[in-house]
Amino acid sequence: MAASTPLEKTYWFILLFFFLISHQSVLATRSKTLKQKPCKRFSLYYHDNRFSGNATSLANATSLAVINATGFGDKNFGMFVIFDDPMTKDRSYLSAPVARAQGFYFYDGKLQYNVWFAFSLVFNSSKYKGTLNIMGADLFSQKTRDMSIVGGTGDFFMAKGILTIYPDVVQDDYYFRFKMEIKLYECY
Amino acid sequence: MAASTPLEKTYWFILLFFFLISHQSVLATRSKTLKQKPCKRFSLYYHDNRFSGNATSLANATSLAVINATGFGDKNFGMFVIFDDPMTKDRSYLSAPVARAQGFYFYDGKLQYNVWFAFSLVFNSSKYKGTLNIMGADLFSQKTRDMSIVGGTGDFFMAKGILTIYPDVVQDDYYFRFKMEIKLYECY
Amino acid sequence: MAASTPLEKTYWFILLFFFLISHQSVLATRSKTLKQKPCKRFSLYYHDNRFSGNATSLANATSLAVINATGFGDKNFGMFVIFDDPMTKDRSYLSAPVARAQGFYFYDGKLQYNVWFAFSLVFNSSKYKGTLNIMGADLFSQKTRDMSIVGGTGDFFMAKGILTIYPDVVQDDYYFRFKMEIKLYECY
Repeated sequence: MAASTPLEKTYWFILLFFFLISHQSVLATRSKTLKQKPCKRFSLYYHDNRFSGNATSLANATSLAVINATGFGDKNFGMFVIFDDPMTKDRSYLSAPVARAQGFYFYDGKLQYNVWFAFSLVFNSSKYKGTLNIMGADLFSQKTRDMSIVGGTGDFFMAKGILTIYPDVVQDDYYFRFKMEIKLYECY
Repeated sequence: MAASTPLEKTYWFILLFFFLISHQSVLATRSKTLKQKPCKRFSLYYHDNRFSGNATSLANATSLAVINATGFGDKNFGMFVIFDDPMTKDRSYLSAPVARAQGFYFYDGKLQYNVWFAFSLVFNSSKYKGTLNIMGADLFSQKTRDMSIVGGTGDFFMAKGILTIYPDVVQDDYYFRFKMEIKLYECY
Repeated sequence: MAASTPLEKTYWFILLFFFLISHQSVLATRSKTLKQKPCKRFSLYYHDNRFSGNATSLANATSLAVINATGFGDKNFGMFVIFDDPMTKDRSYLSAPVARAQGFYFYDGKLQYNVWFAFSLVFNSSKYKGTLNIMGADLFSQKTRDMSIVGGTGDFFMAKGILTIYPDVVQDDYYFRFKMEIKLYECY
């Protein structure tokens, strides 16, 4: 049987060769399912410090109601706020911002408080440069609220995912803080 | 030739093995094309019942113009409406809502009527929990209008698709109804 | 060794067969990386000709501030503009539009100029029919600005990509021009 020996060797080489290649393909196929685990995940704090009308507030505030609450119900319906708010790593409003949240929200509930957001997270640090674009409903009836990360640029090129809001503090009519968890499920 | 028989058996086993694995890979490649068929598809009716100024309307209306039409052309340019509108399975405004549409639209045509929408469909029923986030142009010159479903949460985790609007009824200045067809082409 | 000859022939056939199939799978896997090269790419000019208040402007303007700049800083914070602007192939405002840009932008910078956009590019020409939906930050501190193309309809069915803004001309308070480069990385 000396003749079959080199043939058998080639045999196992081919077996190994195709197993590796096929295995790679199977992994590639599977990754679609595995994507339910984020390819990137981190949390930041969002601080909305809205202009209250006095001079101190004019100096410190980072957002402003450009349309005031209407008399349509008593849940601020119609109040439209434009913001350029700091994002920090910890809870402190005074920490150095690692990103800015730029966009708007408005109240759209007549019988209960509800808010709708669309904004960009703008990163310009040594860690990240680029933006994440986000939109969705901030439903007050839910303990946490999921919005859609619909696209990204720069270091977040073509990203897609979920932004989860954890309400953290409402200090008064003019300051509130969210923990925002960024979970990307499509990364390039 | 007894020596080659077990070798040949292994042979066909390997052939079958790799055929199955490779076939799976080819199918995975093809699925990208097949996605032109929606992975989920259903229709709902959207009712916009805008506040007209009187007390009955204050009780029943679900949307409000927070910016009125301007004198820039005569096609309502600039009118900006915030809504929290019911979505029903059939045409009746009085049917129990199966979802809410929360967001805004505004008129942006100077020489003809045109509207631009951004909103969330919020589901909180026994069938679906979660949101779909939508934006796009409602072009009056077209019989049906396609918008983008740019993301989803909950049961619609990371969904992407097309929302088609079929104008159904415009009753007066303050009520209109759309059939909205939701077609998802990316489902997780 | 006559017995092994037909076996060896089949052998090389199988080797070739699986190599081709596996190669295809590997290519399919790789295409995810290769997508960094756009599947479609073209540029257009965006002209924003805002209503200035006089009769000539009422006839020619294609956008209007529906909320005026506030006193929150001196960088136009809060000015909210709705537009239905022409998109042309070359720099001339008088060229026949090949698309319309319909949507809004607003100023959201207190200490520096910054703008946030959401709009649809509406194509209705012999070349393209359909829309591209876009949102993102127009950061004045950057030479070029990337926004997200979050979806598309018609000829741009389910498209996703990046829109890059190259500021071109700011003539006065009421006219500016951008070069907009459309790069799609997901095409169907």
